[in-house]
Amino acid sequence: MPALFIRFSYEGTAYSGFQLQANAPTVQGALEKALGVIYKEAVRLAGAGRTDAGVHAREQTATFTAPFTIAPLVLPRALNALLPGDIVVFSAAEVDPAFHARFDARGKIYSYRLDCAPYPRVLQRLYSWHCPFVPDMGAMGRAAALFRGTHDFGAFQAAGSPVASTVRTLRRLEVSSEDGGQTIILIYEGDGFLYRMVRLITGTLVRAGRGLLQEEEISAALAGHNPPAVGPAAPPRGLCLEKVLYDSVPTL
Amino acid sequence: MPALFIRFSYEGTAYSGFQLQANAPTVQGALEKALGVIYKEAVRLAGAGRTDAGVHAREQTATFTAPFTIAPLVLPRALNALLPGDIVVFSAAEVDPAFHARFDARGKIYSYRLDCAPYPRVLQRLYSWHCPFVPDMGAMGRAAALFRGTHDFGAFQAAGSPVASTVRTLRRLEVSSEDGGQTIILIYEGDGFLYRMVRLITGTLVRAGRGLLQEEEISAALAGHNPPAVGPAAPPRGLCLEKVLYDSVPTL
Repeated sequence: MPALFIRFSYEGTAYSGFQLQANAPTVQGALEKALGVIYKEAVRLAGAGRTDAGVHAREQTATFTAPFTIAPLVLPRALNALLPGDIVVFSAAEVDPAFHARFDARGKIYSYRLDCAPYPRVLQRLYSWHCPFVPDMGAMGRAAALFRGTHDFGAFQAAGSPVASTVRTLRRLEVSSEDGGQTIILIYEGDGFLYRMVRLITGTLVRAGRGLLQEEEISAALAGHNPPAVGPAAPPRGLCLEKVLYDSVPTL
Repeated sequence: MPALFIRFSYEGTAYSGFQLQANAPTVQGALEKALGVIYKEAVRLAGAGRTDAGVHAREQTATFTAPFTIAPLVLPRALNALLPGDIVVFSAAEVDPAFHARFDARGKIYSYRLDCAPYPRVLQRLYSWHCPFVPDMGAMGRAAALFRGTHDFGAFQAAGSPVASTVRTLRRLEVSSEDGGQTIILIYEGDGFLYRMVRLITGTLVRAGRGLLQEEEISAALAGHNPPAVGPAAPPRGLCLEKVLYDSVPTL
């Protein structure tokens, strides 16, 4: 049976996250339902990773085993015709069956968007966190630098999410501004992310930008010695999974 | 009784347009309801102009007579606390009672956004029209130039909207692209706009960009001699009222 790799985007506002849940709308649930209509039997999707309720994705990926062959060029349009408007599949390819969307990913890029205008900009409200103050970009940048590189990020994960190791490498953490400083964009690229890690770091950076946290306090937090300096987690709506990174995708 | 001038933005998706209707949700209705709570009596708003169902506004304006004085600096926050998240009031000022949001406007700026990516970009879908082809920017620009200036735009209005004169001046009609050509932005600035005029011109420009209309056909349409070249009206979701223009606002 053919193995397929799909790439898709979604607005997370209406969903209880990516991953399938029995009694809540999820992105995976919507995709599997559409796949079930097309293939006339249940199809189980393996996503590259979870996103929380309200978190968006510009490029999420998944692999699945198809019951029979449908030309990959036709599949996105067939799926989009069945999917709600807030999920769009934009590519499909047959791949080596050994390839797995999650296990073969070598990293991910996330963005977090802050709206720093005095009043929330209404057309961005579902895709940004409104922080009505002018942050100190220098302080945010210096705080961001503390997180770059390989660290034990154990202090920057939500409770109750056991993983074998909490060491991760943040290859990029960039802070930039647009619209004359009214929009701030954070870009995170890493080999992997702990549960809520991006939102917890973002919440910490915002406090640094408001002058409420000093660099030493953040360093101590990263070392696990200063829990009050961690977060709080920035709200999900500003977060977007931008891209899942692969060394190569073995398309057939 | 004090006269007040407010500026506000809204996402039009959930509304049957700006103007009050008896049995449908409107932006004016939501604002008047919030004003009624604050002033404890009915307040009638005079908006700078209507927007259709689904059309957005980054800066719409209105004037109203307040039953009593509330510090204008406090009013936006008081209103926003009562309004749904898709309407945000961002300024209020007491003005000369002779000033009127509509009659004193000397023009308006609208934007229209086209998403020309092969598949709709999901986080822009409520704010753009998905046109999945690469338009000929030169042809669109030449077509746009035909509309600039003072013309009888009578052929570019929706039926059943009687006005004294259909002559209007388009001071600007700019076509530009972003994201490597995947997003096209049209900017319209004029002294006034007929009903559906921006959407009908946009629909015509998109056909020109697809190579389906020649310049002579558009000139003939503008002269009232070629109805098939008019429109069809571009959908409301790509349209946004950017700004209402005044020579000066007589704040007190």
